[in-house]
Amino acid sequence: MPKLAIIQQLVSCVKSDNVRRAWQLVKQAVEQRPDIVVLPECFNFPCGTRLYPKNAEPVPGETSQQLSKMAKECGIYLIGGSILESDRGKLYNTCLVFSPDGKLLVKHRKIHLFDVHIPGKVNVQESKIACPGNSLSMFETPFCKIGLGLCYDLRFAELAQAYTKKGCHLLVYPSTFGMTTGPAHWDILQRGRALDNQVYVATSSLATDNDADYISWGHSAIVNPWGDVVAQAGSEETIVYADIDLQYLADIRQQIPLHSQKRHDLYGEVESTSWR
Amino acid sequence: MPKLAIIQQLVSCVKSDNVRRAWQLVKQAVEQRPDIVVLPECFNFPCGTRLYPKNAEPVPGETSQQLSKMAKECGIYLIGGSILESDRGKLYNTCLVFSPDGKLLVKHRKIHLFDVHIPGKVNVQESKIACPGNSLSMFETPFCKIGLGLCYDLRFAELAQAYTKKGCHLLVYPSTFGMTTGPAHWDILQRGRALDNQVYVATSSLATDNDADYISWGHSAIVNPWGDVVAQAGSEETIVYADIDLQYLADIRQQIPLHSQKRHDLYGEVESTSWR
Repeated sequence: MPKLAIIQQLVSCVKSDNVRRAWQLVKQAVEQRPDIVVLPECFNFPCGTRLYPKNAEPVPGETSQQLSKMAKECGIYLIGGSILESDRGKLYNTCLVFSPDGKLLVKHRKIHLFDVHIPGKVNVQESKIACPGNSLSMFETPFCKIGLGLCYDLRFAELAQAYTKKGCHLLVYPSTFGMTTGPAHWDILQRGRALDNQVYVATSSLATDNDADYISWGHSAIVNPWGDVVAQAGSEETIVYADIDLQYLADIRQQIPLHSQKRHDLYGEVESTSWR
Repeated sequence: MPKLAIIQQLVSCVKSDNVRRAWQLVKQAVEQRPDIVVLPECFNFPCGTRLYPKNAEPVPGETSQQLSKMAKECGIYLIGGSILESDRGKLYNTCLVFSPDGKLLVKHRKIHLFDVHIPGKVNVQESKIACPGNSLSMFETPFCKIGLGLCYDLRFAELAQAYTKKGCHLLVYPSTFGMTTGPAHWDILQRGRALDNQVYVATSSLATDNDADYISWGHSAIVNPWGDVVAQAGSEETIVYADIDLQYLADIRQQIPLHSQKRHDLYGEVESTSWR
């Protein structure tokens, strides 16, 4: 049964320090012999659009090379949170996934940028800095297919539905919800995606840093297909683990056979032809 | 601002007694001057497929006439939970909605029948007794459009998405979750539908009767578009109320503009051409 490790990393303003810290945390995670390790969104610099341009780098580039080495040296699937990718003068919030032999498997550019304005609480316009991705991203492992999203992508039920339709049994969202939407929506979104699609859902977040420009809620989690939170961090830097029990997933789908009971004849269905 | 009243009724095995009790509860609800009143699924007999055939009746019929009178006498929109409808030798689990002048506005036949087998906990095959509905059901009020589902219909995210796409701002699900899926999934499903679609969601359930054939979880609720439970019953017979604040709904949609941010170009969308 594959084991998943979710790293909730505390980051500083120095990118090279953060990459070094990611190395330490991945090595610490590997002591528990996980098959898949996940880093958080923006793991190599503090989240905050103001900080985007100066932290951007190409792929391949310095951080992507380090991630590739981590995956290979540790023999793991590494879902490398996200970095700011620069490509032909444009910036993207990009998740890189490496196989245990260090090969880049897929590159997910965040599709839904965080343009949210809740007066007095949240005012972020990520699209002023970054460009959106234009494709869905999944990859195969020997265990199951895995679908990818980044943070705000989690809000969009259709994305999870499209991945599920394509046979993904685990959805992973490196994320960093803030201190308003985190307490309000973080758990419910993950549990809802897991329950509605009868899949595992995992999120990895930056640890809470109350001095940061954008304060992260933390609470990285793994949710099973019954909608139960099976592992969850608090606010601090930590690593949480869970087994991805695909037999349990199959049992749930047999007991509550949503997938065969859907009435697509009455309400259609989502579907995607845009894949990376 | 329209006020919604949700009746959580305790039922007996005698249909006429239950209809009488519904009258009493609707009259009690009306003292708070609601615009819309909701009765639970199977409000006129104890939920349980074994009991279906002998409690079935045509529409128009005895119970539908009583519901029409309740709506007219009280001057309310009445979402009449569900009755077992017999029609040309077939049975349906059917929700009837009446306008304040007593007119039948829409008839929703439960689309997704409760065929679930969780060994040792739940074993119901509703489709052995009833036939599924073959259309979505919404209706207009002076306040907003309202989309309808019955109980297990709540599990299917696509149904709520189709209603939302058509402009419904309130989704109502007369329901009766049981003692396994109730504690596990009742809240998360309602909150997820409300949050994902930025709509109000209301459910009305039978009150818990531990001597019943099928024991209902109760916990009828009203959830706002932020995903917060704004009113909720416990297990007992009761009525809960909430205002449906459409300005608040509009504010949420402006603050987190999911509807304009969806990338239907990438993952398509649900849509329905089957309407009642």
